[in-house]
Amino acid sequence: MGVEEANGLRFAIVVRSPAVSTRADRLAELTVRFGTNVQPGQVVLVAGEPEQLELVRAIAEEAYRAGAKFVDTWIFDPYVKRSRLLHAPEDTLDWVPPWYGARQTEIGELRGARIALAGDTAVGIFDDVDPTRSGKDRLPMTQESLRVTNEQTTNWCVVPAPSPGWAAAVHPELGGDAALERLWDDVEHILRLDEPDPVAAWEARIAELNERAAALGELDLDSLRFAGPGTDLTVGLLPSSIWFAGDFTTGDGLRHMPNLPTEEVFTTPDPERTEGHVASTKPLLLPGGISVEGLRVRFAGGRAIELEAEVGEDALRSYAAVDDGGSRLGEVALVDGRGRIGKLGTVFRTTLIDENAASHIALGSAYPFAVGDEADRARMNQSAIHVDFMIGGDEVEVTGTTRSGDEIAVLRAGSWQF
Amino acid sequence: MGVEEANGLRFAIVVRSPAVSTRADRLAELTVRFGTNVQPGQVVLVAGEPEQLELVRAIAEEAYRAGAKFVDTWIFDPYVKRSRLLHAPEDTLDWVPPWYGARQTEIGELRGARIALAGDTAVGIFDDVDPTRSGKDRLPMTQESLRVTNEQTTNWCVVPAPSPGWAAAVHPELGGDAALERLWDDVEHILRLDEPDPVAAWEARIAELNERAAALGELDLDSLRFAGPGTDLTVGLLPSSIWFAGDFTTGDGLRHMPNLPTEEVFTTPDPERTEGHVASTKPLLLPGGISVEGLRVRFAGGRAIELEAEVGEDALRSYAAVDDGGSRLGEVALVDGRGRIGKLGTVFRTTLIDENAASHIALGSAYPFAVGDEADRARMNQSAIHVDFMIGGDEVEVTGTTRSGDEIAVLRAGSWQF
Repeated sequence: MGVEEANGLRFAIVVRSPAVSTRADRLAELTVRFGTNVQPGQVVLVAGEPEQLELVRAIAEEAYRAGAKFVDTWIFDPYVKRSRLLHAPEDTLDWVPPWYGARQTEIGELRGARIALAGDTAVGIFDDVDPTRSGKDRLPMTQESLRVTNEQTTNWCVVPAPSPGWAAAVHPELGGDAALERLWDDVEHILRLDEPDPVAAWEARIAELNERAAALGELDLDSLRFAGPGTDLTVGLLPSSIWFAGDFTTGDGLRHMPNLPTEEVFTTPDPERTEGHVASTKPLLLPGGISVEGLRVRFAGGRAIELEAEVGEDALRSYAAVDDGGSRLGEVALVDGRGRIGKLGTVFRTTLIDENAASHIALGSAYPFAVGDEADRARMNQSAIHVDFMIGGDEVEVTGTTRSGDEIAVLRAGSWQF
Repeated sequence: MGVEEANGLRFAIVVRSPAVSTRADRLAELTVRFGTNVQPGQVVLVAGEPEQLELVRAIAEEAYRAGAKFVDTWIFDPYVKRSRLLHAPEDTLDWVPPWYGARQTEIGELRGARIALAGDTAVGIFDDVDPTRSGKDRLPMTQESLRVTNEQTTNWCVVPAPSPGWAAAVHPELGGDAALERLWDDVEHILRLDEPDPVAAWEARIAELNERAAALGELDLDSLRFAGPGTDLTVGLLPSSIWFAGDFTTGDGLRHMPNLPTEEVFTTPDPERTEGHVASTKPLLLPGGISVEGLRVRFAGGRAIELEAEVGEDALRSYAAVDDGGSRLGEVALVDGRGRIGKLGTVFRTTLIDENAASHIALGSAYPFAVGDEADRARMNQSAIHVDFMIGGDEVEVTGTTRSGDEIAVLRAGSWQF
């Protein structure tokens, strides 16, 4: 999809010169003007954590400069979540104040914008929490947030926000300030903010991904098989599964990039046709920053029937037990080796970045817009959760089987084969 | 009102030993257990600013320890408010997201608790903002917040939260850390946290204030006259005005201290019988930290007909112009010289503390529970705002006139005369 075709708007921003703005200002400008594409008169929700305050403020300032009517900042504190998990009665841990959901629902009704910051600021603070308790509290995620996403009423964008806590976890070998400086360098590289024209660089990459999504659609695949160390997994697709890149348009025709960075193409799988076993190739993070590492899952008839992990097993088990759909797939995504993330070889401990380093699947809620047919949409997975885990890498081969039964090589050593 | 009479609960907490807890922990314990009196199963709203995060976390932890079902932290950032005031279209500045009001209304319906932190963290950041614009944005205050207060459905408490920004404004002669240390000392003294048993000290002081409120009621006053430098003001009372100390009980019988510190007795005046002129004796603060200093107001027929200030005049004028009741009185309060605040001689630049240093009046919304009679309650002032300003001090004499026409000395040099 070209730029002009989407909504007649040309993203002609010039990201501010490093000489006259802070790193946060430049990241904010890319987020507001390009990623989210905030329009005059919009209400804009900005969700972050206390350590991300500098970027929250920079985004709010830029959103108001872009003409926002109101910027609603939601600062969610993981330390308060920890207090809840330690002390609150267990049967209350899945309770969510109704006004949290109302905020999401009403921003959808107002055709507002939503911006969320990623990058776990408080790594390890849940390590001593009973995992069956921690899995029950899914905040800051809400059901309404997933629903509004699926309704395509809001333009939205998730971006990484470097913070001291996150930097210390990603670069523990460096000191506090050096780790943060290094993480900012990483994030600027990953976000192509080190390019003379970051928006042009993104448009070029997204054009490639849109082209791959279209080509995958033309293959008319019935299933994908992932094969590599610890992994032999077949994921069935729905007859009308549609491949997408992270280049979205709202129902009202407003283009936005829901994730920055984005290096993936993805679709909605058949929730009843996942078979085999799979090993995660990077840690995954549950909301609030609970880490799951060394995950292995066995699927039969679409359901995760065995699940074990070196770290965080019980938390993931409790988390996925929220509903029936929590054990079935809602997404399958392919990532080639041409992106900037995988090459760094760094585990960023945040799904937003790590999922764009490697092909991945997600347990839980599916994207209805990635299904073309009403009957298939009725069959796609439904859940209150959506948790991505990374299963791809250079050692994992991805092979497709078409509806006519032909096998087609899809990815080998990170390169597209079609 | 005695302790046991209120709700059968004895506030038998022992504030944690300084040796084993931080200052924030001890302030949090006083706030949660004594001031707010959080009950098992309650939803607790904690509202603060980013610089107050340490205390927000300590309060959340203590509220969960007290059995809270959920602690909803609302971190309101004055810098984002500044961006709004600088850039958003002027006709949108009074818009409040409906979910902000819903949060207050629903916490009332749930019989929840509300805790708010005071102490301007960002002094001066609104100085270059157009005051007619800044007066239109009343956040973080909402109409629903005032309404829930008046419905007496929630137990609530406002406490001061020392922060670097506030400390720098109160003690500019000291350096950053020294100023903050000094402000903590001040706040601990004002909150009687420097007593071996702070709760016992508060119970003794509140018993005095309750006794004075009862005695004022027995005087059957028709009006109060304030006379001092720049001030000759008569405030008429309603026939059924009731004097209160800051020792509240919800409709369900749950005792709480809505302000800590509290050194005042107050009532709801007749909104049509304020006459004369008055000079403020301390700066007042509008929501978001906009300062008003050197204020002089002339009243006739209950209405503020002339208003001038050395600093912040236009902001106050715009703020009070919200509705008809914004120019009439909703509260009159008397403060004796036995409290801890006035003696310090410090301007704390926060209404919570400064209003308890000196007798004061408030423009805007009145307290319906401080009126005994339905007909009088229909006459009391109504407004979307409530802004206190300090008019008392050792040089201001307060004299009452009873309904039978007798003059009675009320306060002279800070001492009760009856």
